[in-house]
Amino acid sequence: MGRNIRMKVLEERTKTLRRRLEELHLDALLVSVPQNRFFMSGFSATDPLLQELSGFVLISRTSRVILTDGRYLAQARTECPEFNVLMYGGDFISVFQKAAQGLEIRSVGIEAGHLTVDFYDRLSRGLGQHGIQVVKTLNLVEPLRVCKSEDEIRKITCALRITERAFQTVLHRLSPGMTEKQAAWMVLSVMHEEGADGPAFEPIVASGPNAALPHAVPTDRVIKSGEPVLFDIGAMKDMYCSDMSRTVVLGEPSERFKELYCLVRTAQLEAIRGVRPGMPTNEVDGLARGLIERSGYGDYFLHSLGHGVGLATHEAPSLRRLNPVELQEGMVITVEPGIYLAEWGGIRLEEMVLVRSDGAEVLNSDRTFYSFV
Amino acid sequence: MGRNIRMKVLEERTKTLRRRLEELHLDALLVSVPQNRFFMSGFSATDPLLQELSGFVLISRTSRVILTDGRYLAQARTECPEFNVLMYGGDFISVFQKAAQGLEIRSVGIEAGHLTVDFYDRLSRGLGQHGIQVVKTLNLVEPLRVCKSEDEIRKITCALRITERAFQTVLHRLSPGMTEKQAAWMVLSVMHEEGADGPAFEPIVASGPNAALPHAVPTDRVIKSGEPVLFDIGAMKDMYCSDMSRTVVLGEPSERFKELYCLVRTAQLEAIRGVRPGMPTNEVDGLARGLIERSGYGDYFLHSLGHGVGLATHEAPSLRRLNPVELQEGMVITVEPGIYLAEWGGIRLEEMVLVRSDGAEVLNSDRTFYSFV
Repeated sequence: MGRNIRMKVLEERTKTLRRRLEELHLDALLVSVPQNRFFMSGFSATDPLLQELSGFVLISRTSRVILTDGRYLAQARTECPEFNVLMYGGDFISVFQKAAQGLEIRSVGIEAGHLTVDFYDRLSRGLGQHGIQVVKTLNLVEPLRVCKSEDEIRKITCALRITERAFQTVLHRLSPGMTEKQAAWMVLSVMHEEGADGPAFEPIVASGPNAALPHAVPTDRVIKSGEPVLFDIGAMKDMYCSDMSRTVVLGEPSERFKELYCLVRTAQLEAIRGVRPGMPTNEVDGLARGLIERSGYGDYFLHSLGHGVGLATHEAPSLRRLNPVELQEGMVITVEPGIYLAEWGGIRLEEMVLVRSDGAEVLNSDRTFYSFV
Repeated sequence: MGRNIRMKVLEERTKTLRRRLEELHLDALLVSVPQNRFFMSGFSATDPLLQELSGFVLISRTSRVILTDGRYLAQARTECPEFNVLMYGGDFISVFQKAAQGLEIRSVGIEAGHLTVDFYDRLSRGLGQHGIQVVKTLNLVEPLRVCKSEDEIRKITCALRITERAFQTVLHRLSPGMTEKQAAWMVLSVMHEEGADGPAFEPIVASGPNAALPHAVPTDRVIKSGEPVLFDIGAMKDMYCSDMSRTVVLGEPSERFKELYCLVRTAQLEAIRGVRPGMPTNEVDGLARGLIERSGYGDYFLHSLGHGVGLATHEAPSLRRLNPVELQEGMVITVEPGIYLAEWGGIRLEEMVLVRSDGAEVLNSDRTFYSFV
């Protein structure tokens, strides 16, 4: 994306956010969620630690400021030429307070879903002494991220293509006797060769009974013929994430595997077929879950059907039974039903789907599903 | 560590924490910091997202409970046989409330340096309705982690050895024309071959002017002869972290490099020589900083001297100018002075040091410092 287009995109996002701030009678928002910071400013630093943020983006009614410490100063200046970049040492609060006073900020929102209780308390006390009110907010920037632009869709698809190519190579090289950890490393290694900036999340490779753990961490277990091997992997490229699950068997799949695989894949296709703008997320979940429940495996589908993907691997909307929202054009979601049987293993299949005006566009190009479906 | 010893260690830690809870008139502590969870229970899951914890460890006066969701249930049961493991779906608060009532908990501490404002507010409201008081606490488990046991020191040293071996291989293979990203990948790749469970943090490889950014992210910049190349890398093994920085030059170092390198290394040795139990952390920082300041480079030493290392790469104590604490026997700290000159580059040297009763024990075995020091 050219420099000018990038500037325009950021300005457009800023305008939308400022309208929201006006509605809420807030003078500014202090953005701390890394993906939100990047989305509003282009500042791409990640946080070394949860309790150690690499910086804040402050969007007021009239100005845009980045507050960061010495370690990220040069990066912030390079990445965000339109922003005023201020440095803090140990004392974030007094630097922020001076900036806020200079900008005549009397009330500032913070992201209550991200800042820690302790940081909020100190900030609130520190700024309160100077007559600046700190207001808890939730989901002010996130809704701006939910519907993806064509440029974002290209980046997400690019990250997904890397994942798919990596998976094909891994599948080709995978053989019985290899451990889960070795296979997981192969995933990382091949994703790197394919051009990933890194993994979007730690790859899951779970074999046999381990596949019964939806979020299994790869172990030293040796992968055997005839058992399910569950891959849940994703590359990150240009800050955007991808997320894909496949379950395979080396050698001959058992009858039980075939039966459950068919069920999961059918449930997945059923849900994908249902996707359209305006559909409540719980109904999409219900399409897959209903089918699995009617087959008697409802208790073994242990998680929600899917989630949004973008700058974060897991973001809005969540496709689950509770708190539904309506699907909108431009949302990118995963559709990933699964069945998990303790001792035996599990099967999960995950596709990435873009909500288009006329229904689902499956972003995956990989079609290596078992033909017994 | 054998199963019985492990159980005893966990029980010992629980006893210490319970004494602290008693002092604070708290019935229980809800542990959410991943490293604290592991330290108190052996539950090793990491959190997929900041706003998406993989579980909680609840230590009450009489019982120990793990609360987690379906994805981590089997893992929690396997890893923590001494714990009662409860599962929550979407609704953490009601499951927790029932558990708390069953255990007659009237007041529960939360980790205010980790839980988000929003989660705290919801928890506080939800439990308040049932007469359970939620109390903000800070640093209840962390102090137990500060002084390392011999078993922990062995694990940290093991992680450091992997890092050192990887660094030697990388140094051997590094050549002008390689990009920073390629070198960073080589670090990850060789650490894996050397047996790391993963990186403790994303490796930093910063060349030429990029080395002026203390926390540079590896770029596509081609590494050239004669310029500083800063490595800050660390492997993780058996949940423990290591952290090591070296700055090297391919080809002939410039006079300026030699001068600054000598200064940084001398400052580092000065600080290491000063390390002993009872010494305030700001004084250790001052030993290195004073020397750099007297040489006129005080403004270019942009960060604190070091930090503790253990289950987290950055943990207590912090070796900085503000809020000093006294060094104690068993602390493992980094000593990492640096000088950063915009445009030119930077130099940082980092060793890991164990505080013994009679002074510093440098945990690094690698001695590849330039001989012009």
